Amino acid sequence: MILYGKQVAEKLSDEIIEEVRSLKEKGIEPKLAIVRVGKNEGDLSYERGALKRAEKLGIKVEVFELEEGVKTEDLIECIDKINNDALIHGILLFRPLPKNIDENKIKNYINPNKDVDCINPINVAKVMEGDKTGFAPCTPSAVIEILKHYGIELKGKNVVVIGRSMVVGKPLSMLLLNEDATVTICHSKTRNLKEITKKADILIVAIGRAKYINKEYVGENTVVIDVGINVDNVGNLCGDVDFEDVKDIVSDITPVPGGVGAVTNTVLFKNLINACRLQIK
Amino acid sequence: MILYGKQVAEKLSDEIIEEVRSLKEKGIEPKLAIVRVGKNEGDLSYERGALKRAEKLGIKVEVFELEEGVKTEDLIECIDKINNDALIHGILLFRPLPKNIDENKIKNYINPNKDVDCINPINVAKVMEGDKTGFAPCTPSAVIEILKHYGIELKGKNVVVIGRSMVVGKPLSMLLLNEDATVTICHSKTRNLKEITKKADILIVAIGRAKYINKEYVGENTVVIDVGINVDNVGNLCGDVDFEDVKDIVSDITPVPGGVGAVTNTVLFKNLINACRLQIK
Repeated sequence: MILYGKQVAEKLSDEIIEEVRSLKEKGIEPKLAIVRVGKNEGDLSYERGALKRAEKLGIKVEVFELEEGVKTEDLIECIDKINNDALIHGILLFRPLPKNIDENKIKNYINPNKDVDCINPINVAKVMEGDKTGFAPCTPSAVIEILKHYGIELKGKNVVVIGRSMVVGKPLSMLLLNEDATVTICHSKTRNLKEITKKADILIVAIGRAKYINKEYVGENTVVIDVGINVDNVGNLCGDVDFEDVKDIVSDITPVPGGVGAVTNTVLFKNLINACRLQIK
Repeated sequence: MILYGKQVAEKLSDEIIEEVRSLKEKGIEPKLAIVRVGKNEGDLSYERGALKRAEKLGIKVEVFELEEGVKTEDLIECIDKINNDALIHGILLFRPLPKNIDENKIKNYINPNKDVDCINPINVAKVMEGDKTGFAPCTPSAVIEILKHYGIELKGKNVVVIGRSMVVGKPLSMLLLNEDATVTICHSKTRNLKEITKKADILIVAIGRAKYINKEYVGENTVVIDVGINVDNVGNLCGDVDFEDVKDIVSDITPVPGGVGAVTNTVLFKNLINACRLQIK
């Protein structure tokens, strides 16, 4: 079975639209701030997707664009303004930031109740603790949403995650543990990777290398979730998994594009609704 | 080989004594605050061990004892006082706290630079990020110290951790990842536990069940690290591993008592020295 992200995003969107309606009845207009330093193409592309999604959901977005060369203090000033604006409920700050900005300092400035992409350490720690009053980062959350949507049980399953970044691998492992999965975290230094991945009930790949995972890495009953977004040697978007090579072997697989990436920005707005609820308490 | 903790603690202690000497030459007297609410026997026993160790190391300790029934605000006041006392460099707060105290609120009050047992979310997040400017909790750090002391390589090894607590399993998994191990985290909901543990290069057990892991769970080349401290049915201290049952099979094993527990409070003072260095910068 191909696990399309679109259906997941649509179902989540329906729920969000309902929530937005109910918030608006109470006089609350959910609003997201996007803070972007410079004009990185990846950021701009994500921003366009988020703006489009927000419009469908009836959610306002304000983009705060800062010049590439701004100082740490300028960015803090911008964040402070958003923190103190009662009409803005969430902050998405694109990272990595330019090198002249002290990202560690910035992290602590984002109001944890508006931190819809899990930048503030308070939310990072909550993800590790399994404390659901916090926000988990959007990509790992999108993976969990897809698995749940398609009724793929996690409890007691052997889930192998390849990748140990702070954006995907590590927080995702914590979310999977909170769902009672047995989690193995692999990475570039792992030996016998194929042996490990072949035995996985669920294999989640987030390594950022085009079509790296081929049929030698998967088993017949493996559910494959591909988090990668790369460009192949003929210029097409592709994942970290060689979709054509494995699709007839594995039990289920997410496509790229149209898989995890199609769910991420909807999760962002789900987090925004939760942020609204936190702030109106 | 039996991996005794004593040798590890002694080597660390020698290094700490040297550091204390050098700090004292600069007029700095390293000092730890122990904050204890009530008179829990486990806390008192750990406190006695820490006081004894501190004396050997030439480190001062001040115990702040609060009554069982104190309010959250009283504890915050106590912590604030320590935070603002330039002559105290580290805080050890015994947990779990009594139920009437809001532990989540307390966590954020501990000055991250004095947080030698990794309670503040800023340090929890740093452990996850592999940012070594923070403090890792003492028990997981003690496990790493033992493995390093005995020259047991972690890079690329299959390490299985049983237990997913915030005190041991989760932070330890992050520390192991930062050492380039491939990490599998198991727990009460894991299926086929024996199959998984038998293939481990290194098996770390932190489940809190006396002698649960017997010879059916281990392989010939397994290094076993036993984090458990329990009392068996004849009243003797024992670990989570049935030492007698597995000791002739496995490659290496830590005893209980005399293994991980013998290193923990030395790691606490190693963290205190690092805290001193942070604060005098």
